[in-house]
Amino acid sequence: MRVLGIDPSLQSTGFGIIESKGDTLQALVYGIIKPERQSAFHQRLNEIRTELENIIDRFSPEEVAIENPFYARNVRTAISLGQVRGAVLVAVASKNRQLFEYSALEIKKAVTGFGQAEKDQVQRMVKILLNLDDDRMPLDASDALAAAICHLNHRLFLTKIEENSKKETI
Amino acid sequence: MRVLGIDPSLQSTGFGIIESKGDTLQALVYGIIKPERQSAFHQRLNEIRTELENIIDRFSPEEVAIENPFYARNVRTAISLGQVRGAVLVAVASKNRQLFEYSALEIKKAVTGFGQAEKDQVQRMVKILLNLDDDRMPLDASDALAAAICHLNHRLFLTKIEENSKKETI
Repeated sequence: MRVLGIDPSLQSTGFGIIESKGDTLQALVYGIIKPERQSAFHQRLNEIRTELENIIDRFSPEEVAIENPFYARNVRTAISLGQVRGAVLVAVASKNRQLFEYSALEIKKAVTGFGQAEKDQVQRMVKILLNLDDDRMPLDASDALAAAICHLNHRLFLTKIEENSKKETI
Repeated sequence: MRVLGIDPSLQSTGFGIIESKGDTLQALVYGIIKPERQSAFHQRLNEIRTELENIIDRFSPEEVAIENPFYARNVRTAISLGQVRGAVLVAVASKNRQLFEYSALEIKKAVTGFGQAEKDQVQRMVKILLNLDDDRMPLDASDALAAAICHLNHRLFLTKIEENSKKETI
C-alpha cells in the first residue's frame, strides 16, 4: 500500500510517499513545495494544489494522511493555515483519494512513542524507520512522512483486528 | 466590466455576477452553492471549487471580489472558514482571474453607507441598486452581490482619479 503524507504550510508544504510491503516501509519520494513568493496569494495556493495533483498522478498513492490542526496561535494564523489546507484538500478530492486525519499527538506518538516530541526528534525517528541517510531532509518533509507512517500503523492495526476477528469466528 | 462576488461558507457559498455599463449595474446571475451534506469534507470543498470554475467559464467575469475575513469567533471556526476560502481562491487562481479583497465594513459601507448594517439591510439595498424584485434571494447571494458592487465602486473611483490626473497633466 502507498500512502501520501502532507504537512500543509504556505511557505513550504511537506510531502512524502511511503510504500509498505509486509513489515517494511520504504520512502518513494519526499520533499517540499515552495510556491513563488512574488505570486499573488491565491496563485500560491493554486501552485500547492497543482504540485500535489502532479505528485498524486505520478506516484499513485492509494490514500492520503494529513495532520488535523486543532491548534493555532490566533484567529489570523488559523485562517491562513485553513486556506492552505483548503487548497491541499481540494487536490486530494480532485484526484479522488480518501483522506485520513490525525492529531499532532497521534502522529508524534506513532513515530517516537512520545506525543510531545520536537520536530528534529520526529525527523531522526523517521530516518531510522525508513532507513534514510539524508542530511538535507527538510523538517516539513519529515513531518509529512511521519503522517504517512502514522496512517500505515493505523491501517496495519485495523488489518490485524480484522484477521483476529476472522480467526475467532472460524 | 463583469465582476464575480463570492461569499464563502461550507453550507452555502454565495455568488453573484454583476455587469456595469456606464452608470448602470445589472445582475447577470446569482445564487448559492450547497455541497452534498453526505460527502466527505474534502469532497465538499472540491464541489465548491468546481461549481465556481463552471460559473467563471460560463459567465466570464473579468475580476473577482471577496470579503477579507479578519474576524472569526474562535480558532476552530477560523480554520474551517479558512479551508472554504482556500477552495474558493484555488478556483479563482485556476481560472487566472485577479482577486480583490474588501473588509466586511467596506462592503457594507459600499451598499448601505453604514458599516454595521445587518444582512437583511444589505440585501434590501442590493435589490434596490440592482433593480431586483426577488423574495427568495438567499442572504449569502446578496452578500456576494454586495462584494461585487463594492469592487465596482472601487474600480469606478480609480477610473475617475485616473481621468482627473490625465486632465491635469494635459
